[in-house]
Order: sequence, then C-alpha cells, then structure tokens
Amino acid sequence: MNYFSSNFKLGILGGGQLGKMLLNDTRKFDIYTCVLDASNEAPCKIASNEFHLGDLLDYDAVYNFGKQVDVLTIEIENVNVDALEALEKEGVKVYPSAKTLRTIQNKATQKLFYVDNDLPTAPFTRFAYLSEIEDAIENGGITLPFVWKAAQFGYDGNGVKVVRVLSDLEGLPKGECIAENLVPFKNELAVIVARNASGEIKTFPVVEMEFHPEANQVEYVICPARIDNDVAKKATEVALKVSKAFNHVGLLAVEMFQTENDNILINEVAPRPHNSGHQTIEANYTSQFEQHLRAILNLPLGRTDSKVGGVMVNLVGAEGHTGNVVYENIETIMKMNGVTPHIYGKKQTRPFRKMGHVTIVNKDLNEARRVAEDVKKVIKVISD
Amino acid sequence: MNYFSSNFKLGILGGGQLGKMLLNDTRKFDIYTCVLDASNEAPCKIASNEFHLGDLLDYDAVYNFGKQVDVLTIEIENVNVDALEALEKEGVKVYPSAKTLRTIQNKATQKLFYVDNDLPTAPFTRFAYLSEIEDAIENGGITLPFVWKAAQFGYDGNGVKVVRVLSDLEGLPKGECIAENLVPFKNELAVIVARNASGEIKTFPVVEMEFHPEANQVEYVICPARIDNDVAKKATEVALKVSKAFNHVGLLAVEMFQTENDNILINEVAPRPHNSGHQTIEANYTSQFEQHLRAILNLPLGRTDSKVGGVMVNLVGAEGHTGNVVYENIETIMKMNGVTPHIYGKKQTRPFRKMGHVTIVNKDLNEARRVAEDVKKVIKVISD
Repeated sequence: MNYFSSNFKLGILGGGQLGKMLLNDTRKFDIYTCVLDASNEAPCKIASNEFHLGDLLDYDAVYNFGKQVDVLTIEIENVNVDALEALEKEGVKVYPSAKTLRTIQNKATQKLFYVDNDLPTAPFTRFAYLSEIEDAIENGGITLPFVWKAAQFGYDGNGVKVVRVLSDLEGLPKGECIAENLVPFKNELAVIVARNASGEIKTFPVVEMEFHPEANQVEYVICPARIDNDVAKKATEVALKVSKAFNHVGLLAVEMFQTENDNILINEVAPRPHNSGHQTIEANYTSQFEQHLRAILNLPLGRTDSKVGGVMVNLVGAEGHTGNVVYENIETIMKMNGVTPHIYGKKQTRPFRKMGHVTIVNKDLNEARRVAEDVKKVIKVISD
Repeated sequence: MNYFSSNFKLGILGGGQLGKMLLNDTRKFDIYTCVLDASNEAPCKIASNEFHLGDLLDYDAVYNFGKQVDVLTIEIENVNVDALEALEKEGVKVYPSAKTLRTIQNKATQKLFYVDNDLPTAPFTRFAYLSEIEDAIENGGITLPFVWKAAQFGYDGNGVKVVRVLSDLEGLPKGECIAENLVPFKNELAVIVARNASGEIKTFPVVEMEFHPEANQVEYVICPARIDNDVAKKATEVALKVSKAFNHVGLLAVEMFQTENDNILINEVAPRPHNSGHQTIEANYTSQFEQHLRAILNLPLGRTDSKVGGVMVNLVGAEGHTGNVVYENIETIMKMNGVTPHIYGKKQTRPFRKMGHVTIVNKDLNEARRVAEDVKKVIKVISD
C-alpha cells in the first residue's frame, strides 16, 4: 500500500488539539484523513478531508466510522473499545490496539499491568468503591498519606488527589479507585517511545516536567531534562520496556517519577501524541506528530534528537474567565527570543481549559527556560 | 484588531503548494482563512476555512473575494491587479501592494524599477516585440550571446532562454521581452526579507542555489550559503535595499547573482513565500510561512537564523511520466538522516511539474548536502 498516493484513508478518533497538530503533518505527507468528534466546533473540523460528527463512546458511531478507513488512530483515550475490537477482527489496523487501550483506560488495570510485567511503579491498592478505603485505613491495609486516583475518566489532574487526612476523601467520586503510596520524588520525567509495525523503535529525549513550587502544577516541559545521563538512560530503558510490554505501535508517552534515590517509577502512560512532546515541533529533528504518523503507517521512523533546547508552556484559561477567548499580550510574547504560540482554536475559554501552548527554543536551554518564565508572566488567556 | 480571536479574515489569492504551507501556520495561530483558486483540486481546498472557486485574473472574481476579507495576500503573482487597486482604495489591506505586483508582474518594468532605484542588475534592453531583437543585433544595439526573457507570465524557468545564435530565437513567444547581458556568475544566491507594516525588518540567511553542472537547473537550495561573510553581507544589503525601494510589506524573496568579481546583481524578486525558503520550515527558528503571516498581520517578526544546516531538493515530475502520481522510493529516503518529504497533494504528475520538496537538515551542512545527493538519486516522481 502506498500512503503517498490515493485510496488510503487514515481515521482519527477525536478532533481536539492533538488531532489538529497531527493533521498538520498528514497534510505534509498528503494523507487522506477522516476525523470523528462529537463537537461541530472541534479544532479538526477543518484540515481533515472528512469530518464526521459522532460520540466517541458510542459503539455504532465508532464502528461505522472505522469501517471506512484503513488505519485508525486516536487522539484521546476515552473511546469505545468494543467497537475497536470488532474493527480489528475485520481487518482495520487500529493503533493503539483495543487491548492496549482497554488496559490504559482503567488506572487500576494499568497499574496491575505494570506489576504483571515487572515494570517499576509505586505500590498501590485497588478498591471497587471509595467507601472501602476507610475500612482499609482502619484495618491498617493502607496508611495516610496516599494518592487517591479514580480508575476511570481522569484527565489533566482531575481524578487525582493527595489524601493526608480522612476528610480529604469527602466529595470524591464514589467508584473504582486506587490508593497509591506517596513516593517522594525529585523530578517528574517523560519519555515518548515510537514503534512502527515492523518493530523499529526510537525514543525522544527525556523531558522534565517542572512544577510550580507552590501550586504543584506542571509549569514547564523542558527538553532535554536537566538530569544526570545515567538517570536519563534508566528512564529511557523503563519507557522502552513499557512499549515492548504493550507490543505497542504508534507513540507511547511514559510519565515517570525520579525518586529521591534516583529510582524510576512509572506514573502513567498515554498511547498517542502527548502534552510532554509538543516542543518537538520546533526543537527536535522529527516532531512527535510526524513520528506518530510514521509509526502507524509503518514508515521508517525519523531522528528524535534535539536541534535546539526547547521549553513548552501550556496556555490554560485563567481563573475567573468563562466565555469568548482573548489571548492578552500575545503580541508581547511574540517579540521574545525564539517564541512560537500555538493557538488551538477553541472559541470559549474556562478556568484551566487547555487553549494552546507556547514553545520557546534556544541553543542555550537555560536561556529558553528564562524566556519561558517571561512568557508565563505576560500572557493571559481571558474572556472578552 | 486581535488576530487571535474571531471576526478577522485573511484572504489568500491562489490555492497551490505555497498557500498550503501558509495555511499550516495560519492553523497554528488560529487565523480564519479564505482561499480563491480556479481549480477545485487545489491543495488549499482543505485546511482553509472557506474555499472559493474563481479565476485569479478575473477582475470580478478577485474583487468580490477581496471584499470579504480584512487582509489579502497572494501565493502567486499572476492575479488581477486592477481589482487589488480597487480593494486597497476601499480599505482592504493588500500585501504585497497592487503597485508592487504591477511592477513585478512585468519583467521589463521590474528591471526598469531596479535601474530607477539605483539597484544593481545586469544591463538589458527592452523590446515590445521579439522581432525587434534581430534588428537590434544587426544594428549593433545588442550582441550575442544574451539572455532572452519574456516580460510576462514566465514561471520556473519558462520564459527564459540563453540566446547564443540567431536561430535560438525561433519558436519563442512573439511579445514583449528583454535581452539581458549574459553575466558570468559563480553562484546564484537568494535572500528573503520580511517587513511588517510598522516597518520592522528581518532577513533570512543567504541561501545558495546549487546548479546541476550540465543541466543548468537548480538542484539544491543550501542554507546558509557556503560563501564568504562579506559576500553574504553584500547580498543581504542589496536585498534590504530592494525591500525598502518597494516599501514592501510581507516577504520579498530576492534572487541574485554573485559575479566572478564578487559583485551582486539582482536577478528577480518574488513578493511572497518562495521556493528558496522552504528549508526554513525545518532549519530556521521561524519558517518563511510563519514570518509572512507575522509580517502581513503586523505582528512582531520572529528570529530568522538557522537552528541547523538545511538543504532543499525539489520533487518534480520525471520526464516521460504523465498521469496519477506515484512517489517511488519515498520510504527509502525517509530512512535517511534528517529527511522530511513534503508532498503537495497534486494528483496528476507531468514532466517538471513541482510535486513536492524534500528537506534535509543536519548540524553539519556538508553532511546534509551529501544526504541530499542520495535523496535526489533515489526518489522518482512517476505515474502509475
């Protein structure tokens, strides 16, 4: 099959910002694309060849969409996996596989997968209901503090809470969850692994997610991570082991903790282009989006190393602003050294909604990091 | 006006590959785009917000299209300039200006502009009809050999011929033309100048167009050019003078000759993103397309220097092949170091048609140049 001439169709489940950035590179390779999304205002509505309206969790919507394409990929994990399984049986190439997605969609299953495959992760206990946690504490099964995580449908920090006292459990969703040991760590790291169907594997450089000292929120993604070579090597090895355990095709973003003893523990994975790889567009030889395409189309993978140092800052909706979005001071940051804003095209802002990101590149990574701080101080995503 | 929220419309005249690459960056900035093109199969049909069918040389088509947008730009020079003049009078921002386009569209007028503005260019004579050339030779007004250039509608080497003997004139178009002195040169160079409406100016690094030793055809665009610093400085100064003479807004690509005495002579200009700047997508801090947008939207201009060395190879249709395009061996070149193909999405190939380009980047420019040679040997644009 030749992807570079007609008759081939790539399907993408989800029409958000990741899909939008993926579409840019499908255009570069002239790949015919079909996108399924529930919103008529999805950023992928333009730049795809065909835009289909439909619910990603609906069996029929996903199945009927998938029947029309040759290769099916995702830009969001919450899709109907039963439909993907049926499509796989009928010969559609689905990357990531239904099996991988089923494992990843549920955080308890995902953690058990690491244990079963001898992959390092923080100790944890699974609970069918939130109410079971209290008993477990009373019986000494688990001890405070710990990290509560909802098993399903967590997104961008939702569904995760550090529980220090029992009352912290109040108001949390009642369903399946895990309690994970609170492991002190020095750094949160991530490695994106790319693997194509022929088994060729490449990893992007280890990145560092720098946290705000007080807000405990990722402020900057820094590439390459400012860590020792042996830690970077260890993190890369762990990420490769995870990719192999899943027999994964496409991108797999592996988020990890570097503990105070320089051990690497897997936090969670995403089987698709990921927020921790946005800076690759400007900073690396091959962007994560191009690499995902190369992988799922079984093309040779591109170089993953850095051309220059890169720092990524998310543009999220400011607190207290809901409505038509305005990017205040965007012209000011565009004057700064090596700054490129990426605006995702969502019309409405609300607090903490991901509205875009800004990449800052420089041969001197420290200078890029310094400019990133200026960017973060100046730009505001508000409503009009 | 805020380009980063709604109600702003950018119009692009022409829906070919330059427009397509420009659209990629409009997506990054979430700019609403309208494209006018005569072909329903234009590469810009997707990725624009609105695609309008119409003849770019038709007054009404261009005028009616232009009335709907706030800023109007081009990706091809052959458009109806009378309509642009009318639109300018009615408040549409047209970049490049109607006046600039009128000067550039006619090569005789363009050459006279250089003379009038004391800009260096090879000596030439204008003729209203081809038939006048023979008389001029007989009268000693011009001497063989010289370069014949059609005044209008030349494109990609069409409309240019070295005339060594009188019979070389046979079969050439009969209309307005110029006869230019054949100046021996060492290198063909190009500089892309960006200027925004506020007058901020930046230049991209000087590039070198390397010619095939026998075919006299540009084979590689090499950035930065492998020339002495003082020659690069001189070429950049000349390009800046041209941009100022036009009072240009947007990109102006200035093609120049480096003579055997290291003088710089202007060959011709293009008031838009240009083939000599495609490698900026991968090799420079800001791509020419993003820079064109920044310039015409009066945003701050981005850094123009190189992240890494870049070499660009055009993918043109092979001789003897007309029909549905196939990119033979594209997977082989994608295995090579630092190689990214750009496929323009034209369905039909024909001999010498520009179907795409390939960028090769490397920190070592000589290595990129070596890989480029392999790319050129291996990939073939043929029909099925």
